[in-house]
Amino acid sequence: MEINRQALREIVSDESRLVFDSIPAEYLTDALGRLHGEAAALIFPLSTKEVSGILRYAHENRIPITPRGAGTNLVGSTVPLQGGIILDFSRMNRILELDRDTQTITVEPGILLQDLQAYVESEGLFYPPDPGEKASSLGGNISTNAGGMRAVKYGVTRDYVRGLEVVLADGTVLQVGGKQVKDASGLSLKHLLIGSEGTLAVITKCVLRLLPKPSCSVSVLVPYADLSTGIRSVLTILQADANPTAVEFMERKVVALGEEFSGVKYPCPEAGSYILLTFDGQRNEVEANLERVRALALANGALDYVVLEDPEQAADIWKVRGALVKAVEAVSEQEPVDIVVPISRTADFTAFVNELEAASGVRMVSFGHAGDGNVHLCVVRGNRDAETWERELHAVMDRAYHKAYELGGVASGEHGIGVSKRRYFLRESAKENLTVMNQIKDALDPLHILNDQKSYIGGHDHAVPV
Amino acid sequence: MEINRQALREIVSDESRLVFDSIPAEYLTDALGRLHGEAAALIFPLSTKEVSGILRYAHENRIPITPRGAGTNLVGSTVPLQGGIILDFSRMNRILELDRDTQTITVEPGILLQDLQAYVESEGLFYPPDPGEKASSLGGNISTNAGGMRAVKYGVTRDYVRGLEVVLADGTVLQVGGKQVKDASGLSLKHLLIGSEGTLAVITKCVLRLLPKPSCSVSVLVPYADLSTGIRSVLTILQADANPTAVEFMERKVVALGEEFSGVKYPCPEAGSYILLTFDGQRNEVEANLERVRALALANGALDYVVLEDPEQAADIWKVRGALVKAVEAVSEQEPVDIVVPISRTADFTAFVNELEAASGVRMVSFGHAGDGNVHLCVVRGNRDAETWERELHAVMDRAYHKAYELGGVASGEHGIGVSKRRYFLRESAKENLTVMNQIKDALDPLHILNDQKSYIGGHDHAVPV
Repeated sequence: MEINRQALREIVSDESRLVFDSIPAEYLTDALGRLHGEAAALIFPLSTKEVSGILRYAHENRIPITPRGAGTNLVGSTVPLQGGIILDFSRMNRILELDRDTQTITVEPGILLQDLQAYVESEGLFYPPDPGEKASSLGGNISTNAGGMRAVKYGVTRDYVRGLEVVLADGTVLQVGGKQVKDASGLSLKHLLIGSEGTLAVITKCVLRLLPKPSCSVSVLVPYADLSTGIRSVLTILQADANPTAVEFMERKVVALGEEFSGVKYPCPEAGSYILLTFDGQRNEVEANLERVRALALANGALDYVVLEDPEQAADIWKVRGALVKAVEAVSEQEPVDIVVPISRTADFTAFVNELEAASGVRMVSFGHAGDGNVHLCVVRGNRDAETWERELHAVMDRAYHKAYELGGVASGEHGIGVSKRRYFLRESAKENLTVMNQIKDALDPLHILNDQKSYIGGHDHAVPV
Repeated sequence: MEINRQALREIVSDESRLVFDSIPAEYLTDALGRLHGEAAALIFPLSTKEVSGILRYAHENRIPITPRGAGTNLVGSTVPLQGGIILDFSRMNRILELDRDTQTITVEPGILLQDLQAYVESEGLFYPPDPGEKASSLGGNISTNAGGMRAVKYGVTRDYVRGLEVVLADGTVLQVGGKQVKDASGLSLKHLLIGSEGTLAVITKCVLRLLPKPSCSVSVLVPYADLSTGIRSVLTILQADANPTAVEFMERKVVALGEEFSGVKYPCPEAGSYILLTFDGQRNEVEANLERVRALALANGALDYVVLEDPEQAADIWKVRGALVKAVEAVSEQEPVDIVVPISRTADFTAFVNELEAASGVRMVSFGHAGDGNVHLCVVRGNRDAETWERELHAVMDRAYHKAYELGGVASGEHGIGVSKRRYFLRESAKENLTVMNQIKDALDPLHILNDQKSYIGGHDHAVPV
């Protein structure tokens, strides 16, 4: 699988978009920078035609391909483990069309979420998916079916992908879905490709669904004595037809780190946990829902109910939520986890994590999306040496992931499996499911050039990698 | 592929659930009863274990399987074209669990939509998908990703399937999805299976997402001088953040048939078309949206704006909408069409249909889901003899489907492709997409025992069937 530089130069004419020597280290890893691969070429395509040409060449020559968006992933998806070519989409980042009549926008996959959101909001429209990492690419968001804060009311990335243009491993270009809303015409290749982590095809165009921009959005901070009370209270809120946009939970101990990091103070510092909610829509509707939830929260153990009417105060409170990971990382290296359990089991899962923390001595702070059972843990390394950390991290994570599956959950709600979660995902998944996933991989990418040995690939007939 | 009756008796012990001789004709067709197949056995399984045993037997002996829910499909999906075994799920129709905390219900696939809806609503909950045929089975709804009236606000069946238990062609039982909300863990087999028309697996259990039941629901009838004005007006309504639940359109000529059939009179009989909207949610929110849309509709050509506050009147008006197909059928045999186009092209498409009708002399009445570009046409046979009808129907349908694809649409929004729409679907779909669908079929059902030669199957390398 030697790279023929001249062959690639014929596909991508502009020398500045081909890097063969001294590929910068940042392209050989993910956002965490702990796993590193190597590659013979880093290519910045500008068109579907170029992508198709590169894949055809790679397919003919069995050269591994690692697709890359903004490189913000947390699970090693963009680490070129097999060598070969890194296909970086950061320069395919144009907005191609805003179609108000169908309320869709067509973009290239390299556009950043923050740029897309800013653009559509300046046009009075709204792209609801809101993953924490705003500098992520849309192609990456689609590849992991990214979720984020507003999933409770609006759903996840999958729900806003109307159509895709993709290139298969052999260079074939496919259009799947489109601007139409409904589709019962053959297999949904679109839905198979969403969340497939670059293992089946490479995305070159995205048709996204937009909504009218809500005219009003108000957040509320609700402190509770402890995390379990807060999380249980969320169940009653979700059953009350109050339609919250976001329902986040945070332990006090992680908020304290966030306060220190950002200089913002939360009200009610004696609380053990906080629930942070947003309501959006028309003003009268938002106000009615705010009042409905106030009564419910106070009847279910809330210590207070702080409506953040002042936009500056709301922004400050959300700033702390947004900075939690960075606040933890300011203290120590941490391992990010995004386990998801049925929402009724969130409190059981966080209670288990607390016990695990006490028993193992490995510090774990939890926060996340209370409205959908998606628990973010930061597992804190502290001053452990590399070998101890590796051993103790895996020991506690083996138990945490096993518990999540026991509770009816799965390994990842939004980050994907990549390399880092394979160990847990493969161990806990039914062999039958992994077999079918691998049959689909073999059918669509028989030479396994696309992101091989990531996520589910090979997991059905190999020993689980450590 | 001779059936061994004794082998099947060992899997399904109760003789009354096995029919080998004189299979009633209704099991050999679909709801239209025009296409007929034949079968060596009709089996009514009661458990996943039985289904798995039958499929394993069928796989080992290359015996074709035709899965069947309530048999209400309109495209020949349940016609046993290849002989073999009909697997009828009508007795696997139990409600297994209502889980209020996760707002999910677990049911067997044979449960009827009307029974599910009645049950959850009696419990204060709400299953939003609302296809016209309420006597359809949930397994069937999932197999065609059924849509229906409330899709504008709530989405389609796909959006309410949290998890499935399915049996693969070789008898392997898979659990896909679950009670958790988010999932970024490997390929989404669940989403691949939804809408796959029984070609990849057979559904044996469904975990469905429920919502709190809206406390208020109000409908409005809006007459317009002609259909185009009405449909164009819908675009402005959808862009107004008024969140309608349903937006239906009907031509006056089909309403007239419906009035005659049901004995109900619509207001404003001089109208050329009607838009029928529903708003649901909290009372104040519904009222605000009603007023917002009133202003918009009247500014965009509406002749009136009749709020149906009286539940009896609303039920009457909806009764006519629900009876349109039957009203047409009372006059003549008709061919149902459920083409979907981008919502901005709905008016173009219905204008094209009007021209086609005038040019061909084949009567076509249109109504459907204006809120999502899903156009139902009834193509009326009149007194044509069989041969003339076949020829003229195909001639106009070839043009109508071609136009739909030209406008960026697809063959089916909710009925599926089955047998009846294959001709158009295969002709208009990209060969590359059909190839990938068939690669997936070959991987999951290599012997092609499940619903073979339906929908996309075989369409990539065979002449298009007529």
